[in-house]
Amino acid sequence: MRIVVDAMGSDNHPGPDVAGAVLAARKFGDAIVLVGDKARVAAELAAHDTAGLSIEVVHATEAIGMKDSPATAARDKRDSSMHVGLQLVREGAADAFVSAGNTGAILAVATLRQTGLGRIRGVQRPALGVVFPIESRPMLIDNGANADARPEYLLQFGQMGSIYMARMHDIARPRVALISNGEEEGKGNLLIKETIPLMEAGGLNYVGNIEPKEFVRGAADVAVTDGFTGNIMLKTAEAVASYMSDTIRKYIMAGTLTKIGGALAKPAFQRVRDQLNPDEVGGAPLLGVNGVVIIAHGRSNAYAIQQAIGQARRVAERGIVTAIAERLGG
Amino acid sequence: MRIVVDAMGSDNHPGPDVAGAVLAARKFGDAIVLVGDKARVAAELAAHDTAGLSIEVVHATEAIGMKDSPATAARDKRDSSMHVGLQLVREGAADAFVSAGNTGAILAVATLRQTGLGRIRGVQRPALGVVFPIESRPMLIDNGANADARPEYLLQFGQMGSIYMARMHDIARPRVALISNGEEEGKGNLLIKETIPLMEAGGLNYVGNIEPKEFVRGAADVAVTDGFTGNIMLKTAEAVASYMSDTIRKYIMAGTLTKIGGALAKPAFQRVRDQLNPDEVGGAPLLGVNGVVIIAHGRSNAYAIQQAIGQARRVAERGIVTAIAERLGG
Repeated sequence: MRIVVDAMGSDNHPGPDVAGAVLAARKFGDAIVLVGDKARVAAELAAHDTAGLSIEVVHATEAIGMKDSPATAARDKRDSSMHVGLQLVREGAADAFVSAGNTGAILAVATLRQTGLGRIRGVQRPALGVVFPIESRPMLIDNGANADARPEYLLQFGQMGSIYMARMHDIARPRVALISNGEEEGKGNLLIKETIPLMEAGGLNYVGNIEPKEFVRGAADVAVTDGFTGNIMLKTAEAVASYMSDTIRKYIMAGTLTKIGGALAKPAFQRVRDQLNPDEVGGAPLLGVNGVVIIAHGRSNAYAIQQAIGQARRVAERGIVTAIAERLGG
Repeated sequence: MRIVVDAMGSDNHPGPDVAGAVLAARKFGDAIVLVGDKARVAAELAAHDTAGLSIEVVHATEAIGMKDSPATAARDKRDSSMHVGLQLVREGAADAFVSAGNTGAILAVATLRQTGLGRIRGVQRPALGVVFPIESRPMLIDNGANADARPEYLLQFGQMGSIYMARMHDIARPRVALISNGEEEGKGNLLIKETIPLMEAGGLNYVGNIEPKEFVRGAADVAVTDGFTGNIMLKTAEAVASYMSDTIRKYIMAGTLTKIGGALAKPAFQRVRDQLNPDEVGGAPLLGVNGVVIIAHGRSNAYAIQQAIGQARRVAERGIVTAIAERLGG
């Protein structure tokens, strides 16, 4: 297995990206290709013990930043670490691509055949899946690749998500649901209403419409939505979880007894934090492109990068791209 | 002030509805009209001390349940407590209507002139505003009245929300934002992109696009969205808050020391619960119909009903319907 890591991806690149690659090379024994500014990456790498590890550095003259416009960067920065890394996968020189960089730019570069991998034949729109770090570990798809979607896209999101969850998490028949504003018949916007018959006829284990409450309580393995709604849902969940943590901490710190209570209860809070840590579930797979792409958080640390690399190798091992091509391929 | 309360509204009607009406009559000194099954409401009322209070019961032969289809119930149950109550407001016999019943049915009955109040002239679509019980108390509008929306509707939601927040919460120039999947130019779905120029030209204190994180952190007083996205956002926030509470409780109860810590920290948790209690901010105003309508949670207790009545009288007092008519009226 040979995995490409974008060394210029994370908010603090290339530190966490390189450190994570070293951890993964040691843990999984795979070959890692770090793509980025060769001098900076080599300098970073020199700080690590890499004896016996297969880590190679490939130079890229440009880097796409978090503030770059995805479309412009995809078109103009042709020698970015994303372009170079994705082309290694396209050419068969590597099995997967991992980046903690600008999500929109990765989507843009990866989706076009000229710059990256192109779409799998038969896939209308690639989509971004995110496994939520809640107990039942459900996938929400799409999380932002397609701000506007059509019913046929949503059906394919469900099919791709189902293949991913079946193969990655060994779920025999993943339960697929549509996210809606109610479970009753007649609920949903036009997009949802038009998608329901496609879902019912789509050969999926379709369990109907669910609301966010049911999603959080584990009513589906794959919850399908357009990328705008999905992105808002993901970001609302993150924002509310963070707001609640901050508010609880504030009120605990406001009194002497509550502060002592908080100190005693600390291991419980740590368990909650561990469970809700997105690093444990890895990055977001970009499904529907012609190769394995995992997008990690911009704020990833070395551990998060290692986890994303572990996920990428598993996606490659489990043949998810081939399975999507067989299912959706024209 | 004379306020109509749907006695058949809440999940446990008529208990909380009647008890809340009694509390409100005592607290605010207003006349309350309870609409519903006269025998049941009178029996419930007999359990309370109503000496010196102005509480009247108006009979309605039908009641709309939570499972009823809104459209069907609006059309067929012409003598429901919602129909009868809203008509009292339309005829000028009362100043406001409060119900903890089926939200879809209240929307349907209230919006049509034949069954309820009808729209304010110039308003294209009434919308449901919800003030989030987080520190900055921002309003999200629409929360589900319009699963599919157009740019002109969103502009009006912003205008109506702005009037509400200015008059109810004494905010001189409420900051109005669009909820989007990013703040950068080029983000948003087609609806958002088409709405931006209308917002910029709409005479509002428009502060741009915000993500859920900024909404939670208080970046706007009024956040505008279509009813589908708004409803998903509201329900995701509720679901995640409840999931976090349950998870924290579970891990605290799992160890002896953490359990003791949890007991000591209890006042802090109580403060968090009090702050996030939606009853404190009242019910959801239905803005754009020709009269004051407040929709309370189905699971409202007597206190929540009292708060919703307090909110309804304030909406009436502050002339919000008239202000919307002057601003949007053709």
